[in-house]
Amino acid sequence: MITPRTLKGFRDLLPAQALARERVLEVARRVYRSYGFAPIDTPALEYLEILTGKGSEETDKQLYRFTDHGGRDVGMRFDLTVPFARFAAQHIASLGTPFKRYHLATVWRGENTQRGRYREFMQCDFDTIGTTSPVADLETVLVVHDLLQAIGLERFTIRVNDRRMLAGLLETLGLTDQATVVLRCLDKLGKQTPDAVGRELAGHGVAAAAIDRLLSLSQLGGTPAEVLAGLEPLVEASETGRAGLAAVSSLMTGLADAGVADGRVALDPSIARGLDYYTGIVLESFLDDLPGLGSICSGGRYDNLAGLYTKQSLPGVGASLGIDRLLAGLEELGRLETAETPANIFLAQFDAAHLGDYLRIAAALRAAGLAVDFYPEPKKLGQQLKWAGKKGFQVALVIGSEEFAAGTAQLKRLETQQATAIEWGGDPERLVAAVRAAVAT
Amino acid sequence: MITPRTLKGFRDLLPAQALARERVLEVARRVYRSYGFAPIDTPALEYLEILTGKGSEETDKQLYRFTDHGGRDVGMRFDLTVPFARFAAQHIASLGTPFKRYHLATVWRGENTQRGRYREFMQCDFDTIGTTSPVADLETVLVVHDLLQAIGLERFTIRVNDRRMLAGLLETLGLTDQATVVLRCLDKLGKQTPDAVGRELAGHGVAAAAIDRLLSLSQLGGTPAEVLAGLEPLVEASETGRAGLAAVSSLMTGLADAGVADGRVALDPSIARGLDYYTGIVLESFLDDLPGLGSICSGGRYDNLAGLYTKQSLPGVGASLGIDRLLAGLEELGRLETAETPANIFLAQFDAAHLGDYLRIAAALRAAGLAVDFYPEPKKLGQQLKWAGKKGFQVALVIGSEEFAAGTAQLKRLETQQATAIEWGGDPERLVAAVRAAVAT
Repeated sequence: MITPRTLKGFRDLLPAQALARERVLEVARRVYRSYGFAPIDTPALEYLEILTGKGSEETDKQLYRFTDHGGRDVGMRFDLTVPFARFAAQHIASLGTPFKRYHLATVWRGENTQRGRYREFMQCDFDTIGTTSPVADLETVLVVHDLLQAIGLERFTIRVNDRRMLAGLLETLGLTDQATVVLRCLDKLGKQTPDAVGRELAGHGVAAAAIDRLLSLSQLGGTPAEVLAGLEPLVEASETGRAGLAAVSSLMTGLADAGVADGRVALDPSIARGLDYYTGIVLESFLDDLPGLGSICSGGRYDNLAGLYTKQSLPGVGASLGIDRLLAGLEELGRLETAETPANIFLAQFDAAHLGDYLRIAAALRAAGLAVDFYPEPKKLGQQLKWAGKKGFQVALVIGSEEFAAGTAQLKRLETQQATAIEWGGDPERLVAAVRAAVAT
Repeated sequence: MITPRTLKGFRDLLPAQALARERVLEVARRVYRSYGFAPIDTPALEYLEILTGKGSEETDKQLYRFTDHGGRDVGMRFDLTVPFARFAAQHIASLGTPFKRYHLATVWRGENTQRGRYREFMQCDFDTIGTTSPVADLETVLVVHDLLQAIGLERFTIRVNDRRMLAGLLETLGLTDQATVVLRCLDKLGKQTPDAVGRELAGHGVAAAAIDRLLSLSQLGGTPAEVLAGLEPLVEASETGRAGLAAVSSLMTGLADAGVADGRVALDPSIARGLDYYTGIVLESFLDDLPGLGSICSGGRYDNLAGLYTKQSLPGVGASLGIDRLLAGLEELGRLETAETPANIFLAQFDAAHLGDYLRIAAALRAAGLAVDFYPEPKKLGQQLKWAGKKGFQVALVIGSEEFAAGTAQLKRLETQQATAIEWGGDPERLVAAVRAAVAT
């Protein structure tokens, strides 16, 4: 006998968890598509040389790699950006630009699981490549907005910034050469006190006056217009800084034009998103009720997606929904449904002699677009209802010989145990109408 | 510069292909759910000992296997049945029975690619375990029927059989000990002539009289009732055979009760589905116009899913949609859509000064549930329309300064280049209604 178990850092998704994930993925597909993003897929396995050296030293170390049957060195993808870069280099000539794709897929990292992370998780990326248009930046923020709203979140904030404003400030302060180190420090402003970040900056040799100016970013608050007014004196001496100011200002106007409510999108000049990769707007998204959860959807603009694989310059902008983090947040907020079944109607099997009638009823309910689970055995009703209650069905439809004879049925709401009598006189369509009305409420 | 390429036997899905696959997966989820099947997921990687020795020698050889960072011997799943068996052994105590799950996921096999096969493909399995009820068998056939119908196939046939009828015949012929070899030969009846199969059986030492009776299976034809009448004398001497006859007869009655049209499900006594695994009904499904494609959805009943991992006996029944084969068939039949975009409306950007208006219009169309791609740059209209035509949008919405001033718009059907004028007087809701009417036809 072999012990049934999963590998450390890997997990099964049971029905309730898998249903919750499918619901979010369905929403993501719908929203991405509503903006014209098309799906693509790439292999889980790539030539090792495609994957190594594209992320950080950390991702290289975490890579699942091996030699395949043909003696090739291969690796399992650790994100969807590197495969997209390879894909774009290979196919962009035939696909043309601008090219908008989404990619919902699993990635693998041999991470330290002590931080509660899994070694297998899904990413939900969308990107527009082949255009530097600010409209693509704006659409990226709109997609994130529509996505979080469509998931049913009511209290969330998208925090945006433009790396050019930060670059402008660093230029003004003579810190351009130390940009990477300084931006990594600034990125910690959400998690650490300004004092702590200041000490770290001082440790990197940044002068006290410059630190004051850098930390003043975190004190800017209020409406985007107020934050912009505060930023202006800090960055206007730099052309790059002025370009960033203008871009963010237009972005805010566009968001209002597209109907995004005030306050949904905040301007947060301290967001840098550590990666050197980003060159224009950057964005992060937070659940207002769970600030400690971290960003559930992040992204930004980059200059060149696929420089390692092609000479064609492919600027782009995009973001990624952290679906596992989002699901953890929804669970913490008590917003995840717990039903283990995707069907809301349970049809009890009372009397095997009426099997044909049950089949006709189930077929009529399904033809009307309802999902119904018919119990496979004519077990005791109490046992069937107990099973149905545990699974989380909304209603149970109970029809025994007497009910068939009288043209009636019992509809039992499983949570409250409240039963309603239905008169259907043997006409499945009347029964369907009554059940449909009951599950809609 | 690194050459962008995929591994041999692996492939990217470009937008049109990925959209086609997503459409079929959406239908599969909807149909599986309508019967109460719930999704699950399992890791791509499993302990090697879970995976080896569960399939055939061939699958063992094809397994992608390696040693992970923690020194564990691991493998990538080669099907969804073995992981489901491990999953069931691990979780069935908390999930309870009957348990109905579906699993849509990628599997990997280092197969010989010369046969046009890929080393990475999707499987779409559904199973009911923990019950021996014939209702679960019937539901399996109904799900396959509803699934193929919902995909939009008009000409398909589900061929069913019951292994017990074959077992009864073998018992009668004294061939029970050679069952595996004989059934493997019979399984070839669809692809080889009866003569060729007869010669192979003779080569295995089967007597001429027995071969005649075995091959007479392939001559039984007509309605299920006619086939059953022809089978009766062949198998009625065996109790197992009689059980199979009775089961198939009830199955056909149940299918009619559930509204399945005559002729959709054929009784084919020669189907064995080689695997020793199946013990009751077996089924295969064929596109009537592409008989050479092979079965696109196959399955059957088995006695014990998870015997290698648990002492609990878990009988079950299920089937699997071969989505890649189905998509290849749809393509061959010219039934695959070629659009590279999931949106059917293209909104041209004519005049950057009207950006706010375009954003309001796009937002109104999306709020009405329509998918619209707004071109990110105010390029020449001809270039935009050429791009939109190539992508496969249904209509282009063209509104320039003059149109904005006049409260009009042009709706261009991209396939025919036929343009219609819309009067909307600056009211986005009127515009939405006109566009919606245009894309619905």
